[in-house]
Amino acid sequence: MKINSNYLNLEDSYLFFNIAKKVEEFAAANPDKTIYRLGIGDVTLPLAPAVVEALERASAEMGEAAAFKGYGDYEGYGFLRRSICGYYAKKGVAVGGDEVFVSDGAKSDLGNILDIFSEDNAVLIPDPVYPVYVDTNIMAGRGVIYIEGNEENGFLPMPDSSVRPDIIYLCSPNNPTGGVYSGEQLKVWVDYANAYGAVILFDSAYEAFVRDGGLPTSIYEVDGARTCAIEFCSLSKTAGFTGTRCGYTVIPRELSRAGQSLNRLWLRRQSTKFNGVSYIIQRGAEAVFTEAGLSQSKRNVDYYMQNAMIMAEALEKKGVWFTGGRNSPYIWLKCPGGMSSWQFFDHLLNEANVVGTPGAGFGRAGEGFFRLTAFGDRANIETAMQRFAGVI
Amino acid sequence: MKINSNYLNLEDSYLFFNIAKKVEEFAAANPDKTIYRLGIGDVTLPLAPAVVEALERASAEMGEAAAFKGYGDYEGYGFLRRSICGYYAKKGVAVGGDEVFVSDGAKSDLGNILDIFSEDNAVLIPDPVYPVYVDTNIMAGRGVIYIEGNEENGFLPMPDSSVRPDIIYLCSPNNPTGGVYSGEQLKVWVDYANAYGAVILFDSAYEAFVRDGGLPTSIYEVDGARTCAIEFCSLSKTAGFTGTRCGYTVIPRELSRAGQSLNRLWLRRQSTKFNGVSYIIQRGAEAVFTEAGLSQSKRNVDYYMQNAMIMAEALEKKGVWFTGGRNSPYIWLKCPGGMSSWQFFDHLLNEANVVGTPGAGFGRAGEGFFRLTAFGDRANIETAMQRFAGVI
Repeated sequence: MKINSNYLNLEDSYLFFNIAKKVEEFAAANPDKTIYRLGIGDVTLPLAPAVVEALERASAEMGEAAAFKGYGDYEGYGFLRRSICGYYAKKGVAVGGDEVFVSDGAKSDLGNILDIFSEDNAVLIPDPVYPVYVDTNIMAGRGVIYIEGNEENGFLPMPDSSVRPDIIYLCSPNNPTGGVYSGEQLKVWVDYANAYGAVILFDSAYEAFVRDGGLPTSIYEVDGARTCAIEFCSLSKTAGFTGTRCGYTVIPRELSRAGQSLNRLWLRRQSTKFNGVSYIIQRGAEAVFTEAGLSQSKRNVDYYMQNAMIMAEALEKKGVWFTGGRNSPYIWLKCPGGMSSWQFFDHLLNEANVVGTPGAGFGRAGEGFFRLTAFGDRANIETAMQRFAGVI
Repeated sequence: MKINSNYLNLEDSYLFFNIAKKVEEFAAANPDKTIYRLGIGDVTLPLAPAVVEALERASAEMGEAAAFKGYGDYEGYGFLRRSICGYYAKKGVAVGGDEVFVSDGAKSDLGNILDIFSEDNAVLIPDPVYPVYVDTNIMAGRGVIYIEGNEENGFLPMPDSSVRPDIIYLCSPNNPTGGVYSGEQLKVWVDYANAYGAVILFDSAYEAFVRDGGLPTSIYEVDGARTCAIEFCSLSKTAGFTGTRCGYTVIPRELSRAGQSLNRLWLRRQSTKFNGVSYIIQRGAEAVFTEAGLSQSKRNVDYYMQNAMIMAEALEKKGVWFTGGRNSPYIWLKCPGGMSSWQFFDHLLNEANVVGTPGAGFGRAGEGFFRLTAFGDRANIETAMQRFAGVI
């Protein structure tokens, strides 16, 4: 019996563990001080009333003989897939019901999609990055090529024609940097992928935070994307579903590699290793896409974006370089005074009692940078940013 | 870009597609005839009131600022893991909370668990079998050794010491045969696995249907199982959760291979590729394990088992050889008159208008056998079995 020895190549991530430990030690030594947490990567506002109502109604149905639901479709109920297609249609993007796969979240699909690709493929991943992209590929023994985000490219790296990856990860709006690719930039990526037969895995989990109407919220707004891109979406941040669990993945019919439809390969994967998302949760997700659900969920996103604006303005006033915050709940700032990520973490915690996330935790290229998130309470964020401004 | 070419080695399963097509054709040609379906592998009774109440309450909580839940633990909420440990304790089996992993169902975990094992491992799978065991291994390019169930061994095959598998699948009560291993038989399997360092993947999805108090409902009732077995459980059939989606997997702390704890490897897999089960669904699952939830869910299982008894008695009266039906919702019968599985399917459909599942669809050793399920409506099953008895 052999285990999958690729797992032994994973680095244990102590990022959030180390943060928690430092905060705990500080709190123990300073019991009188309030700590302001701007490191949370999770939503805090409750679900929209329209969604709660749909969840309650579906729960009740499961107790009634006539309405009870057993196994659903592996790819999700038609009612939800139609709602998702309608959501795309509002963006001017045509997506077919048989191109949508409902899942328990983008994270699951982003990991599991690798099942349908050979382990020999070369993978291109931006740095800094959501660690799941890297770890899921290490688990499968795939070689990873990093492409560097930095101050010059605004943490929006573009293709390097000397490199020939098979699988390309893009996340826009980006976690952790908050950067958003323009349509022109995405077009360069799409052309590059189509030219070399690569597949783009496009993580669109933060699309609802885009405020600038000129920026794309789906890669399918870009010409040519249907022959090279898979899009991963989530209701986690769009509608506060981090604890409710529902997402969806789009694989266009015309996306084929090695003569095989990736849509059909993924259906085979899902029908073999997955039994669909709870009927109750799918009804809740459907409600997100109703008029009431969309406007109520947008109100929550607006609240977070108002927080982000307060944070961005405070940084601008102090002349701190940053990305994000305008079309993203994340702000990615350059540590002042040439401090390293962890030096700045300690400085901010000790002097202002504010907690953020050291950029070095998201990859080598994150060193010297720092992530703040807008998912907190308004009054708390206002005070935190005043204290922040006082120590830089 | 290469796809995972192992997918091309999968055989498309046309079993249920072909059944549906034949039934449709028959119905079109005989519009006046009632068709009796004994092929359903899905529950039909609604969720227990205690479960529905918990689902509704948790749905409401998600709309309240103070009670709202974001990301939960990857391995499931403590409240549910404690309930599951309590359920095991009632069987006299000690399971620790850190040994329980909550999931969206046994099917997902049975497929995904293979991530932590090398692709070089040899896999032993009983035939006939739940097709997911075979397909998930073909997808990973693993070699499969089949072990034959037949009339002589009552479709409960025992280890063959000339074979040295690394991974062993056991399903008891079995789908599709309804056979249940005794404690003595499982002990032989456990000793065999421990002797050669193999790991048993024990599918316990139908444990709630065991009526004979002398039969084990968990492999951990068998001495030595904690060093060789992973147990997969599901609320799908236990509590009618096929459309609600919740299961759990147990990996004992002392189960190590190649110097690595399988429990820790699985936690790493789940924390990287999964974000936990919906809070709402976990509260529903917790309610299954309350006194009210257990007794209400048991009432549904009892109903199905009463159906199974009616079916078993009808077969006994006609002298038909079968397994299952006493401690399982499945009945696996030998086709009368030496008919093949599909010949008997046609005969039964045409002469009695009863639909079942040809055994050949579950593997080569299923040829000449036939599966009936007890998940239907009582009156329907009674009429179907009278008609069945009339044509054999």
